[in-house]
Amino acid sequence: MTRHRLASALACLAIALPAAAASPSPADIIKQSKPADWRPLDPQNTVVMEVNGSPVVFELAPRFAPRHAANVRKLVQGGYFSGLAVIRVQDNFVAQWGDPNEESEDKSKLRPLGAAEAKLPAEFSIPYQGLPIARLSGADGYAPVTGFVDGLPVAADPKRNRAWIPHCYGVIGAGRGDTVDSSNGSSLYAIIGQSPRALDLNITVVGRVLKGMEALSSLPRGGGAMGFYDKPEQNVPLGKVRLLADIPPAERPAFEVMRTDTATWRALAEARRHASGDWYVHSAEHVNVCNVSVPTRPLAQPAS
Amino acid sequence: MTRHRLASALACLAIALPAAAASPSPADIIKQSKPADWRPLDPQNTVVMEVNGSPVVFELAPRFAPRHAANVRKLVQGGYFSGLAVIRVQDNFVAQWGDPNEESEDKSKLRPLGAAEAKLPAEFSIPYQGLPIARLSGADGYAPVTGFVDGLPVAADPKRNRAWIPHCYGVIGAGRGDTVDSSNGSSLYAIIGQSPRALDLNITVVGRVLKGMEALSSLPRGGGAMGFYDKPEQNVPLGKVRLLADIPPAERPAFEVMRTDTATWRALAEARRHASGDWYVHSAEHVNVCNVSVPTRPLAQPAS
Repeated sequence: MTRHRLASALACLAIALPAAAASPSPADIIKQSKPADWRPLDPQNTVVMEVNGSPVVFELAPRFAPRHAANVRKLVQGGYFSGLAVIRVQDNFVAQWGDPNEESEDKSKLRPLGAAEAKLPAEFSIPYQGLPIARLSGADGYAPVTGFVDGLPVAADPKRNRAWIPHCYGVIGAGRGDTVDSSNGSSLYAIIGQSPRALDLNITVVGRVLKGMEALSSLPRGGGAMGFYDKPEQNVPLGKVRLLADIPPAERPAFEVMRTDTATWRALAEARRHASGDWYVHSAEHVNVCNVSVPTRPLAQPAS
Repeated sequence: MTRHRLASALACLAIALPAAAASPSPADIIKQSKPADWRPLDPQNTVVMEVNGSPVVFELAPRFAPRHAANVRKLVQGGYFSGLAVIRVQDNFVAQWGDPNEESEDKSKLRPLGAAEAKLPAEFSIPYQGLPIARLSGADGYAPVTGFVDGLPVAADPKRNRAWIPHCYGVIGAGRGDTVDSSNGSSLYAIIGQSPRALDLNITVVGRVLKGMEALSSLPRGGGAMGFYDKPEQNVPLGKVRLLADIPPAERPAFEVMRTDTATWRALAEARRHASGDWYVHSAEHVNVCNVSVPTRPLAQPAS
């Protein structure tokens, strides 16, 4: 917890944690990974959203919410979000963006949805059976099974044959009203605090932020009920919100993401159970699905 | 997730969640609480720290870290923290404050510790036996037992007879270097994201923020390694940092805190396992210790 934290080893700590010292650390596993352990951003499935000039890069989850993912894609490609705003930031909960006129009496002020659908079914879970999940061992409390699919955290209940994306930090969902089918992806939120898992299976999750969370998580909290900004001038305008495919290649974010369907990933997720590094004197020998991050790394620059 | 969320009940949802509808909701329990279910702020145990003009109110944990709590109290009362700065904000992890000259070669620049001690023993855990814990049912993963003591989240391992404060959102710890006894409370951090429970039993926890977290959690993230601010001008200066006892009564924060050693608290913590409100269609029937917040409420104003 100081700058010294990563400094030189102390023999006594190595003795205190022999198991951790013997297994490869997450850093070692990442270092020893092969090119095939990584994947590029999917141009059709990645959104780049400018918040205060900083790019928030997020990935959609078509396997878990195909209708919503397709609708968000249409909204983004139609320019729906560009120039809209973050309208709500509730501490230790969510940052939410969409049309500031959503609650206006005068519906003519609303930005039109274009080619996107106004009404979609709820997509709260998918079947567990057949899901290629990289399971995480250990107790979760909220779900009997947790793990990763498509780079996303996943929780599942095999007995009820359902799986869903848990509300971990950085997960993005589609705001809804009182009816389960009242979301269409035109208002989205990202989790900015302790995972509010009570939301799981109550709302449609559409994806996850890959990079740039701090542009959302460090925004001023709203003073209104549920963290909505009190006054229109507090809303934080969004700049361009574009599908990666629609961004000129030279302007695209230049990073790749670790795959979660490989032996390397399984070793990495398992390694996160152990404390690693000389600073630690105790190892929890456990990790929650919401505490396992999927690594990204800059793309190697082509030789010029 | 919209402003409509708290709106009118839908019959179909009441049918979907009969158990939740039958048990009193957290809001009901708070509403029906008695004056004896609440406690005032302890003037000797509460710190008010100004960050960007906003008060962050935190409570020390003398039962869990007596030496550190006493030292932080001395540092605060000696004016040590006033005018120092937040020097590190790492996204989804911690905001840390202390002396910006901590890492300087020239130790003469360091603010003197005054009456406080420079060296303290590590206080990572206390005995579990005899601890008056209000236990929370259900799995945690990181610890066999969780619950609440003195308004603080607690995790415990009865077999090893130890208990500790888990690193939940808003928990405050004392930064240390590579040796376990290298913290003295002169550099503190607060958790601002998903609970990093791997820190548990590795560092001394000194308390918890009761109010004003957003003044820390919404700060710009640091661009340096581990979220330290790159440049001195990025450090966020602290205003006055005072013990509540040293603040004139008229200027003191006017709120009280729910006790966690009452039947009301046990009912409230239990009720947080159930989804409550008409918006929910699924109830997790589980809650993690880091997802249970201890309510505060404004003090009743005396009639004037």
